[in-house]
Amino acid sequence: MSDQQSAVLALTKDLISRESVTPEDAGCQPLMSERLEALGFVTETMVFEDTTNMWVRKGDADPVFCFAGHTDVVPSGPVDAWHTPPFEPTEIDGYLHGRGAADMKGSLAAMVVATERFIAKHPDHKGSIAFLITSDEEGPFINGTTRVVDTLEARNEKMTWALVGEPSSTHKVGDVIKNGRRGSLSGDLFVKGVQGHVAYPHLAKNPIHLASPAIAELSQIQWDQGNDFFPPTSFQVSNINGGTGATNVVPGDVHIQFNFRYSTEVTAEELIKRVEGILDAHGLEYDLDWTYNGLPFLTAAGDLVEAAVKAIEDTVHYTPQLLTTGGTSDGRFLAPTGAQVLELGPCNATIHKINECVSISDLEHLTDMYEKILENLLAK
Amino acid sequence: MSDQQSAVLALTKDLISRESVTPEDAGCQPLMSERLEALGFVTETMVFEDTTNMWVRKGDADPVFCFAGHTDVVPSGPVDAWHTPPFEPTEIDGYLHGRGAADMKGSLAAMVVATERFIAKHPDHKGSIAFLITSDEEGPFINGTTRVVDTLEARNEKMTWALVGEPSSTHKVGDVIKNGRRGSLSGDLFVKGVQGHVAYPHLAKNPIHLASPAIAELSQIQWDQGNDFFPPTSFQVSNINGGTGATNVVPGDVHIQFNFRYSTEVTAEELIKRVEGILDAHGLEYDLDWTYNGLPFLTAAGDLVEAAVKAIEDTVHYTPQLLTTGGTSDGRFLAPTGAQVLELGPCNATIHKINECVSISDLEHLTDMYEKILENLLAK
Repeated sequence: MSDQQSAVLALTKDLISRESVTPEDAGCQPLMSERLEALGFVTETMVFEDTTNMWVRKGDADPVFCFAGHTDVVPSGPVDAWHTPPFEPTEIDGYLHGRGAADMKGSLAAMVVATERFIAKHPDHKGSIAFLITSDEEGPFINGTTRVVDTLEARNEKMTWALVGEPSSTHKVGDVIKNGRRGSLSGDLFVKGVQGHVAYPHLAKNPIHLASPAIAELSQIQWDQGNDFFPPTSFQVSNINGGTGATNVVPGDVHIQFNFRYSTEVTAEELIKRVEGILDAHGLEYDLDWTYNGLPFLTAAGDLVEAAVKAIEDTVHYTPQLLTTGGTSDGRFLAPTGAQVLELGPCNATIHKINECVSISDLEHLTDMYEKILENLLAK
Repeated sequence: MSDQQSAVLALTKDLISRESVTPEDAGCQPLMSERLEALGFVTETMVFEDTTNMWVRKGDADPVFCFAGHTDVVPSGPVDAWHTPPFEPTEIDGYLHGRGAADMKGSLAAMVVATERFIAKHPDHKGSIAFLITSDEEGPFINGTTRVVDTLEARNEKMTWALVGEPSSTHKVGDVIKNGRRGSLSGDLFVKGVQGHVAYPHLAKNPIHLASPAIAELSQIQWDQGNDFFPPTSFQVSNINGGTGATNVVPGDVHIQFNFRYSTEVTAEELIKRVEGILDAHGLEYDLDWTYNGLPFLTAAGDLVEAAVKAIEDTVHYTPQLLTTGGTSDGRFLAPTGAQVLELGPCNATIHKINECVSISDLEHLTDMYEKILENLLAK
């Protein structure tokens, strides 16, 4: 075991030491592809605008198992606030510290090492193994996974299963698998009034007064009940701003930004229709721009779920929860192709924070889990 | 008449050319007091903090007629936007242009010239004449009229009548007398929630959602019906701000500023009690600071109203409207002493604006009106 443990730790360190803040890859993808090419993988680099992506595949046959992930990391924040330099991987008390340790360079290293071990044991495995790696997951996500998927779809190249290395775990590695994500839909709303002096209210039309009953109604609606896999759809106003700053002026408009995290019980189109119906019913004059941040997806059951649950049980002897909570991930771009999609990675307590770190033993466990998933799905 | 017309125009110009932006007096008060002292007035300069005020009085007897006004002006705004330099009084087509022409250096000049003319004709008039002049009306109004009034009250020196030179007129000089003002009460409200991520709404408490039903209720209340002199009490939110700017964060609080303009049918204390009752009924956690900007006042009838109406009718042959509309004025500080208080001055269409101006013939009429008011009240 000790050599294998060293392998994932060493590769994680090598990846962390490359300062790949979005959209920079900083040599992480070549580091991975060199290892994979030694196993017979073929690398297809796909550059879109400022973003480097790669599609690395071994074999032509179906079914296709794909590891999906990103080499980019969020900025370190103030370096002085870190206990250790963020791009110098440092072991402290069983944890590896550094930006990207948990999100998700540890997962990338575990994917590569697990694949090496699996192929060494099963050189004549079924189907194909692929890696879809981007450097644009933490940024605007327009030149990353979504464009690689578009390219594959255009040539009808399909994945059967996609395992995203996002840090899905809560307290210990593998305690949570994300088997779906809620949809995210945002609205950017300007409710219009007529500016005037507070002393002459009959000459003004107060947009804050006009908007308040509509916001009150929207915030009290039960949009759905959720279902076995999703919590109920949630509406949240994130920002509201109206007023000139002067206390004697009625403003001309009020700007309201809101977001839906929605279940598979409702569609974005239904939410849009319902919101606009409420704004209209309140007689509001408004401008409203919608942004589709991501469709909801769900891998409720199937051989990928079974393979992952069994791999975790065999490795750490507990059964993972299947959850769809949390933010969005690149899974939203993979699921519409028809692939079964899961997210499994280390604990997410420190991601995007100062002193991001990952448990070194969790990295070893994660490598074992990934290897067993490959075995469960592709071993002959 | 032509010499008298020149007198008010010349003095208005002299005052405009002194750049007395709040709290600067820039020599305006000495210019006035010198003229008044020549008539036997005695000047008492009252400096409070950064503000120069003066109380100038002729005679010891009751009744006391007081002209009240301010020498300070609001800033010019961008000088390039003016047709003429704001502090160089310029005649164009029968109008005198310059900052303060209408608010209220024209009125101050008319007061001085009317007093000169009245005393020349009635050297042995009844009672006393006084001037209460501040340079702090357009600013924070804490070191101006209110402190002079406090000083006079402390020594039990009373006014019977106070005529404020605020530009009360709408279309032609004297078409409107303000015989009262609504009260003004402001609230500075922070509604508290719990900050969080929009993807985890159960861990956050959205203060915008919590506040909206309360704002909706407050904005829909009919506070009173007003009365013969006052329009109904009005509630207006002037500013609302909540949110971190990020669209995926539920903010920790929302800041709401609002203002009441209220009639004599309700008191500030009643409004405060009712608002806080509504916020409590909505279960809100909040901080709320109240500011009393001014009590309402009303001079419904009496010899000052009669004298002013008759003076206008005799000068321009129409009857003024008595109104209590508009913002606050220093009248709110004078009325609580028991004085009858009116506001009469030129048209207010250009006040505080670029290219502020006053009709030169209105200035002549205003001087005649002021003189006739003195005659109606103090001539033997």
